[in-house]
Amino acid sequence: MKQSILEMLRSGEYVSGEKISRKLGISRAAVWKHIKALREEGYDISSSTNRGYCLTAPPDKITEYEIKTGLKTSVMGQNVKYVRSTDSTNNEAKRHCDEPDGTLFTAETQTGGKGRLGRAWTSPEGGGIWMSLLLKPLIPPSRAPEITLIAGLAVCRALEEFGAQIKWPNDVVINGKKVCGILTEMSAEMERVNYIICGMGINVNISEFPGEIADKATSLRIETGKSYARAPIIRRVTEEFEPLYGEYLKNRLKNIIAGYERLCVNIGRRVSVLYDSGAVTGTAVGIAEDGRLIVDIGGENRIYVSSGEVSVRGVYGYV
Amino acid sequence: MKQSILEMLRSGEYVSGEKISRKLGISRAAVWKHIKALREEGYDISSSTNRGYCLTAPPDKITEYEIKTGLKTSVMGQNVKYVRSTDSTNNEAKRHCDEPDGTLFTAETQTGGKGRLGRAWTSPEGGGIWMSLLLKPLIPPSRAPEITLIAGLAVCRALEEFGAQIKWPNDVVINGKKVCGILTEMSAEMERVNYIICGMGINVNISEFPGEIADKATSLRIETGKSYARAPIIRRVTEEFEPLYGEYLKNRLKNIIAGYERLCVNIGRRVSVLYDSGAVTGTAVGIAEDGRLIVDIGGENRIYVSSGEVSVRGVYGYV
Repeated sequence: MKQSILEMLRSGEYVSGEKISRKLGISRAAVWKHIKALREEGYDISSSTNRGYCLTAPPDKITEYEIKTGLKTSVMGQNVKYVRSTDSTNNEAKRHCDEPDGTLFTAETQTGGKGRLGRAWTSPEGGGIWMSLLLKPLIPPSRAPEITLIAGLAVCRALEEFGAQIKWPNDVVINGKKVCGILTEMSAEMERVNYIICGMGINVNISEFPGEIADKATSLRIETGKSYARAPIIRRVTEEFEPLYGEYLKNRLKNIIAGYERLCVNIGRRVSVLYDSGAVTGTAVGIAEDGRLIVDIGGENRIYVSSGEVSVRGVYGYV
Repeated sequence: MKQSILEMLRSGEYVSGEKISRKLGISRAAVWKHIKALREEGYDISSSTNRGYCLTAPPDKITEYEIKTGLKTSVMGQNVKYVRSTDSTNNEAKRHCDEPDGTLFTAETQTGGKGRLGRAWTSPEGGGIWMSLLLKPLIPPSRAPEITLIAGLAVCRALEEFGAQIKWPNDVVINGKKVCGILTEMSAEMERVNYIICGMGINVNISEFPGEIADKATSLRIETGKSYARAPIIRRVTEEFEPLYGEYLKNRLKNIIAGYERLCVNIGRRVSVLYDSGAVTGTAVGIAEDGRLIVDIGGENRIYVSSGEVSVRGVYGYV
């Protein structure tokens, strides 16, 4: 019902309470109750005794309605769980892991957002896209890391107009600075995955970062000077993700890897592979089918680098 | 305080309420309250106006006190979470995954006990040991399956006097029938494990199984005609587990594998490896360091079998 009301107000013109009441077959009091609920969700709706209701500003909302309007997928994001605030959308998904495959969890803000290896992730209210996809593929746990590649590739393609690239394994960067981080988690038996949660944090309208990370992090707003509605970007990510995931489930990784390599900022560049016992420098030459980075260390020797074992640093600054 | 009272009653003689009250420095009313709580936990304590309290039957309890009394470990099982009934001790552990490394979860009965691949597992009240160890090793997810071997080996050694053997990967059998199933689950990022839950179900005092599984399942009682107190068996499993786990964390798998192979019922026997596309028959010749079963299929060809990919059946009945 709220969605039907939103659709009537979407033109930006005033619509009388009586007209809404008549069209939707509900009482004037019910209309008022829904308008109140919409305002609580953050919609900027003004009311006038004579003219009715009007949606004042084009909303930058990421509620179920905003995301699903015009979403061109068959599974991914067709079930949306939106909350205004949560500890993290990954935790939200864990708590609701009985929801179906492809459920999308979003929040305006995360109070305990996390990056890989427990690192903190800042998630200011409305400043970005904090989303998690709940996936239920029939795979052994060993195949889970490939999901991370897919997520990186999907986000990168969704942000292609901004010149986004992937920093192996799954940071998305613009001009060498991180615009998106991905945290994939799983619950699994030894033989099969129970579920995978693919969390993505995209910095959209954040206007600046504190000093210590200002040279490493960026947002679409910092890069372009403009703000962006988030729901269309969420749709784009979801629409890019779905077909890649479909190929993955059919074991057709070749195209995915090729697509990934094209957008991977490390390929062809010098990287330093940091083991506990020391560092090896070489040239990143490709991505293996299991997601490992292939590094040519000279003399026809190649090493295959898993993200868990080592960290990789470019020899040209952050990336 | 309850534990101190239990210790005083453990002799089986009557102890007066006044004596308990004096020794522990608590009021007679407090003594009574603790006795009441102990009875609710299932302790069979009789009371007599003149003589005091007496622990009537040697209890077959698996509460924290019963398990920890005499437990010779430094970490494993030093924190016990006991509930009378739960859906499954693995789920109980998931809900309390903030508890420390080595926490042991036990229950008298599970209402939704599960085996591998979602198969149902019967857990009648008091009929067996339904326990889960919460582990927090600093390892990548790819090393998790080895934990399953360790658990199988620990249970098998704890039941060695009953002639227990391991059916690869992690069933424990007596005379070819399953006496213990192990379900290992994990929560992980792609690079590191958040936690592992090692669930073990041991059939102890179950007197019979329904027809359809009677030829596949057994219990200590069925094998020996006697009942057993469960807490000492839990201690033994935990005490066998701890040093194996320590070796594992130090990457010293060789001894573990050798110990496993000695008790593995499959080694040296014909097995049939069932792939989706067909079956291969060969002789199981060993266990690889990553836990895979090595099967000699003739002509110097060996295949390495992961439990997730295929199922293995002996060509001599169930095992």
